[in-house]
Amino acid sequence: MLRLATLLSALCTASAAQIAARRDSSAPPSALTIETVNPAVIGAQYAVRGELVLRAAEMQKQMNEQPGSIGIKKILACNIGNPQAVGQQPLSFGRQVQALLVCPALLDMPGVEKLFAPDAMARAREYLAAIPEGVGAYSESQGVAIVRQQVADFITARDGVAAVKEDIFLTDGASKGVEFLLKLLLRGSDDGVLVPIPQYPLYSAALALSQAELLPYELDEADGWSMPVAEIERSLAEARARGVAPRALVVINPGNPTGNCLPRSNMADLVRLCAREQLVLMADEVYQENVYDDARPFVSFKRVASELGAEAAGLQLVSFHSVSKGFLGECGMRGGYFELSGFDAEVRAQLLKLVSIGLCSNVMGQIAVGLMVKPPRPGDASHATYSAERDAILSSLRRRASKLVAGLNALEGVTCNEAQGAMYAFPSITLPPKAQAAAEAQGRAPDTFYALALLEATGIVVVPGSGFRQKEGTWHFRTTFLPPEADMDSVIEQMGAFHSGFMAQYGA
Amino acid sequence: MLRLATLLSALCTASAAQIAARRDSSAPPSALTIETVNPAVIGAQYAVRGELVLRAAEMQKQMNEQPGSIGIKKILACNIGNPQAVGQQPLSFGRQVQALLVCPALLDMPGVEKLFAPDAMARAREYLAAIPEGVGAYSESQGVAIVRQQVADFITARDGVAAVKEDIFLTDGASKGVEFLLKLLLRGSDDGVLVPIPQYPLYSAALALSQAELLPYELDEADGWSMPVAEIERSLAEARARGVAPRALVVINPGNPTGNCLPRSNMADLVRLCAREQLVLMADEVYQENVYDDARPFVSFKRVASELGAEAAGLQLVSFHSVSKGFLGECGMRGGYFELSGFDAEVRAQLLKLVSIGLCSNVMGQIAVGLMVKPPRPGDASHATYSAERDAILSSLRRRASKLVAGLNALEGVTCNEAQGAMYAFPSITLPPKAQAAAEAQGRAPDTFYALALLEATGIVVVPGSGFRQKEGTWHFRTTFLPPEADMDSVIEQMGAFHSGFMAQYGA
Repeated sequence: MLRLATLLSALCTASAAQIAARRDSSAPPSALTIETVNPAVIGAQYAVRGELVLRAAEMQKQMNEQPGSIGIKKILACNIGNPQAVGQQPLSFGRQVQALLVCPALLDMPGVEKLFAPDAMARAREYLAAIPEGVGAYSESQGVAIVRQQVADFITARDGVAAVKEDIFLTDGASKGVEFLLKLLLRGSDDGVLVPIPQYPLYSAALALSQAELLPYELDEADGWSMPVAEIERSLAEARARGVAPRALVVINPGNPTGNCLPRSNMADLVRLCAREQLVLMADEVYQENVYDDARPFVSFKRVASELGAEAAGLQLVSFHSVSKGFLGECGMRGGYFELSGFDAEVRAQLLKLVSIGLCSNVMGQIAVGLMVKPPRPGDASHATYSAERDAILSSLRRRASKLVAGLNALEGVTCNEAQGAMYAFPSITLPPKAQAAAEAQGRAPDTFYALALLEATGIVVVPGSGFRQKEGTWHFRTTFLPPEADMDSVIEQMGAFHSGFMAQYGA
Repeated sequence: MLRLATLLSALCTASAAQIAARRDSSAPPSALTIETVNPAVIGAQYAVRGELVLRAAEMQKQMNEQPGSIGIKKILACNIGNPQAVGQQPLSFGRQVQALLVCPALLDMPGVEKLFAPDAMARAREYLAAIPEGVGAYSESQGVAIVRQQVADFITARDGVAAVKEDIFLTDGASKGVEFLLKLLLRGSDDGVLVPIPQYPLYSAALALSQAELLPYELDEADGWSMPVAEIERSLAEARARGVAPRALVVINPGNPTGNCLPRSNMADLVRLCAREQLVLMADEVYQENVYDDARPFVSFKRVASELGAEAAGLQLVSFHSVSKGFLGECGMRGGYFELSGFDAEVRAQLLKLVSIGLCSNVMGQIAVGLMVKPPRPGDASHATYSAERDAILSSLRRRASKLVAGLNALEGVTCNEAQGAMYAFPSITLPPKAQAAAEAQGRAPDTFYALALLEATGIVVVPGSGFRQKEGTWHFRTTFLPPEADMDSVIEQMGAFHSGFMAQYGA
């Protein structure tokens, strides 16, 4: 009995897994090999840059080294929302301001006014006055104050609800902001985050790296990818029954990969649920400028919460935004922000400490955020150019979205919800049993098999639905509608020809 | 007995801590408050932006709002290696190239050749030819190929050992690279990393966030902060005896906060030790251009390992570099790289996946890395200007380092090793018992108490040695020697006057 008590005591201080790990670690030390890599890294997946992209890179290399050796003309990256990689041009005003900030000596050179618009020069001077150390010094960890104020002004105007710069954190793109929040929130494997299925794989990857639980809730494809509260409550209850504490709810609106825009009533339901259940509402609103359905204008969760008043009391909300999306598409600048609502000073201090460990986000990216939220106003010298550039991109995206979705819906066994927003269509594809068997024989998911075949046949890179997770038994892929408008007919035609051939080969 | 067996079985699947956590999580859900923040975040500290900096910010605010209300003229940030924040100007060539890349339309405008050097224009065209999508698109996750090739060429020339672009990863500053490597490496609380004491607090913070162990080894202050192998072996053995697996050894050379440069024989010892013990050698070499002692020129660990031949067989080495230090001081650009040596393809694939989750580092920062490693060559139009700007900065830093150290050594009870490299002096200060008692009464470490008193009296912000950890019973502070040369006499004079007063107040 004494020995049993000793054993019991030992077990109380270390789990079986810990004991096993200690036994291993008292063995001879081991180098960094695949056996000793952090298993959380091995468990993480990021399909947007996964197998399809690696194969596309191999094909590109072969095409470069032996032109004509593959029967396709070019690799077309529809796997990632990276507009400038497929021909979209940056907007002139912001780039002029950024060039002047990189090289402030230009401002004093004779002839500079022939190369730069006067309002771009004025804006550069405004930033330099506020940041005399320039873009080459570390900024405050939270981001330079002038840009945080510009973000606060933008949010105040957008929502009709006051925002303050103390609640704004500038980040290297929205992804980095999401990582900070999850790091702050997640204490370990007994914490979980409610994530829509399908989801953007940043969330599943970040949760895998944190070794926390992804608590899935399925969007309703038949209802335009809406978020049914009953389904979220089901996932919540299941998690709690297993002893997992749900800490946050992720909502992506406009949707990625789904391309939908949530109706305001659905948003209100989610706000009420998060307030009631004390879940941090993580609102991924990076596509807020990418809205193509006039019946579903973008409304922020902050605004919806404000309108709900007492029903939203106690809500903790984090809203993420980015310069990578919208009509700017400044992905390479890695600029983004998040706004906190409903967090106390102690929590904010911990977050500030966490971001300070990485010193600060890149200052040119911070400036890009300022330029996004404070564009030229009517009367400014660059206003007409800016508006024309913006409208050309957005109206073209709207036409491309509608053309692509129509083209997809014309294919046998393919159905696709309207792309109301974002940069993506996410069609459902019915794959014949023979195709599923062929995929299984390769050890691949059927939609990965389909997407690889599409790539080999056409050079078009899409992401299989399994990379985003999807309702069991359904198969999808995500494609951007970012290729140049002149190429869209050809893209749709090639997808259609491939699909017909695929169905002929594998159909019943 | 049956019930005991059931209990035993339950304990085998979950540790006591896990059980406690599950009990908590089945209680009503809780919002994100200080009680529910990830304890790993609460446990992390980052002194470079800690209490001293917060107090300095408060003082600055008061000085702005009520000029003259504090008896000091200005806040002088000696807490952080942020050269452009204290007056250092960016080098012209690189900034010209970056401006052209931000605004490529400039290249075709009449009159542009009056504003930009011809080699800057040629370099911009070279980058644009290699990256036709420009700086606004996501790059490959590992970084753009042309810059990785430039880094490989730089390393090959520096070390006389071939480097290839496949081993280079471009990152948002060196900090981000360190975070990636630790994430890849550390499996949990039974893994540890050997870290020098004193250390740069990025390492302690990152380890705290990973909930892995910091395995301290003390540098030998009396021997110019050398790294005694016996001390490292002591720490290794202690860790292993406790069941902790040492996975890596961090070396910072030139040293931070210590400002020393390691002799080559000491470096060889460390390489042999890492190869023998299968420890990943994490070589923080970001200060490689900041070397002021002609007897200790910078030598990379890669070169030392190469010269050791078979003695270094099996070594796994990661070398980190950054645009933030050296003579560029481009901190705000967040550009850096690391080079892998001795890792296999499977490990590299996991690292690439990990990096891809954040998409890519900021492309302007990547370009800044290319500009660092491939400066203008003799014969290029910008060569003379570049050399003059570089030499002015480096020779001034050398003078300032020597002046500051001499000034510190003149103070009662203060001794400071020569600043052979980096941007810092790290003097040892003997604090009288009365000062220690006064500190204790405030709940502060004696060196924090001293540094706060220095700040209140002079406006000079330094970092207390306890922020870097230090040998028990010793007290230090870290100060940069970055203030403008014209201010250095005044800085030293103010530090001296403060120190005399402090010693008069608290001395025996």
